[in-house]
Amino acid sequence: MKIRRANDSDDDAIWSMLKPVFRAGDTYAIDPDIPRQAALDYWMGECAYVAGDDEPAGTFYIRKNQQGGGAHVCNCGYVTARGAEGKGVARAMLAFSLDEARALGFEAMQFNFVLANNTRAIDTWERAGFQVIGRQPKAFRFGDGRYTDALVMHRFL
Amino acid sequence: MKIRRANDSDDDAIWSMLKPVFRAGDTYAIDPDIPRQAALDYWMGECAYVAGDDEPAGTFYIRKNQQGGGAHVCNCGYVTARGAEGKGVARAMLAFSLDEARALGFEAMQFNFVLANNTRAIDTWERAGFQVIGRQPKAFRFGDGRYTDALVMHRFL
Repeated sequence: MKIRRANDSDDDAIWSMLKPVFRAGDTYAIDPDIPRQAALDYWMGECAYVAGDDEPAGTFYIRKNQQGGGAHVCNCGYVTARGAEGKGVARAMLAFSLDEARALGFEAMQFNFVLANNTRAIDTWERAGFQVIGRQPKAFRFGDGRYTDALVMHRFL
Repeated sequence: MKIRRANDSDDDAIWSMLKPVFRAGDTYAIDPDIPRQAALDYWMGECAYVAGDDEPAGTFYIRKNQQGGGAHVCNCGYVTARGAEGKGVARAMLAFSLDEARALGFEAMQFNFVLANNTRAIDTWERAGFQVIGRQPKAFRFGDGRYTDALVMHRFL
């Protein structure tokens, strides 16, 4: 599957993938009503990528997780297009992002806010060498008032 | 000690307290060269406060730690003015911020990036009921190339 750096001409494709995920508000700690441009600014602030051969199948970003003395660790976020699930898109994006993050000079990759109920993502990342290094209790509240913990996951590159 | 919400007329006083801490680059994961206005925007983005009777003795902020489903947990940062250390300023700001965060409707407070070598702050927070819920390995690199871990600390309100 082709994966490449995103540019402004990908705005529509990226928003079409982000919109249902952000609007659902049950995986990312993002305001579900976030406007299109704010969402694109958030996603494409440093390095964003698109995956897919004919149709866009997924998108992810790589950015510094902290500034200053913490800038050697990157943070990434991944979204698979609705209808493209179960085809290895997430795994391909993860593999690409690990190589790309090394090429960009990062020494480690960290996910700051992985909902503990997202067992499929957690399994994928643990198989790729990530470890749970933190657990934030009741850190995410769903629309129906239920809570879930959020994990911090990390691996060196 | 008087503690109150900050406003734009406090810009000079707040920057005089932040500047030496940010320029030193050894406690906050902030670009040590951050410009004045960017630092003030970072600090005063939601709710910022100043502490002190005659001279400004400290400043802190309270803000949402995440958006969307994570917006019920707040994050705070504290800086004590150079020369005002050892007078209980940090403890007073912490106590005030815990009450204020409850009044703002937050359910928990979290510090995302506490350098593990900052044992004085860690002791203060543990005595105030915070627990270490995560440890980010080699997450901060000092100017001389040494690394330290960074802790995630949390308490319910």
